[in-house]
Amino acid sequence: MIIMGVDPGTRYAGYAILKKEKQKTFLLEYGCLDIHKKKSLVNKIGAIYEFISDKIRNLEVTHLALETPFFYKNASTFLKLGYVRGILYLIADQNDLILSEFSPSEVKKGLTGHGSASKEQVAKVVTRLFRIKTPQRDDVTDSLAIALCGLWGIGPSGRI
Amino acid sequence: MIIMGVDPGTRYAGYAILKKEKQKTFLLEYGCLDIHKKKSLVNKIGAIYEFISDKIRNLEVTHLALETPFFYKNASTFLKLGYVRGILYLIADQNDLILSEFSPSEVKKGLTGHGSASKEQVAKVVTRLFRIKTPQRDDVTDSLAIALCGLWGIGPSGRI
Repeated sequence: MIIMGVDPGTRYAGYAILKKEKQKTFLLEYGCLDIHKKKSLVNKIGAIYEFISDKIRNLEVTHLALETPFFYKNASTFLKLGYVRGILYLIADQNDLILSEFSPSEVKKGLTGHGSASKEQVAKVVTRLFRIKTPQRDDVTDSLAIALCGLWGIGPSGRI
Repeated sequence: MIIMGVDPGTRYAGYAILKKEKQKTFLLEYGCLDIHKKKSLVNKIGAIYEFISDKIRNLEVTHLALETPFFYKNASTFLKLGYVRGILYLIADQNDLILSEFSPSEVKKGLTGHGSASKEQVAKVVTRLFRIKTPQRDDVTDSLAIALCGLWGIGPSGRI
């Protein structure tokens, strides 16, 4: 089982890829796609599709984990989130990925035991488990947390 | 210049493909993609991508015309519209299509001269111009109207 967690946006997209083998979890890769600001929205959408599709093929990803969207008051931002999520759904279809989605509070509860945990508490769990420094960007930390939820939620439970 | 107008949804997607040659306009194809209700959202997104991509390749479409979205009170419906629009943006990027977008009132004004025209008035113009019967579904009529706006808006003006 190889799972990719994605925290998507049209400017940055955090991602983390985990592998589970014999009850052990390996962090294969994580980072942030920095989509050039000056690109048109159409080109940005294309860049996200290419980047995520390549990672999924190259690392033989089998599962995709996302956070359920919360509603933004800004309709334009919310719609753009829809664009990127649509691309991720398409990638799931094209690569026969098993998709799981978790609400923000499910992610927090899954990681810390509390649905109302702070971002710092979630980051602490993620960095301890993987023995990594706190990622500079929140969307990277979130993608690691979402991938972990997917790993724990859909496979037999196991610890790192 | 070959332009495709799309009125997208996750259940039905109306489309129309027009060709302009020497100031004449030809209606190459129009219809409605009926996406099977029982499909998962992931499979629906994949089906829309395949269908539209195939049409664009087979009919050598060069331009894509869409309606700018209006905000739905239902956040879930609005987000799903975002999914499908994201797919259309991706297709535009992958096929180097020139994308144009028109607000609902621009479409009405472009077709009838009045931004507040009724659906029936728009349908009347479309059916007269192309000498076709009124399509059963509104999304088909709308896709014809959107394609016409794209044709008139981005190329030198010409009549059928």
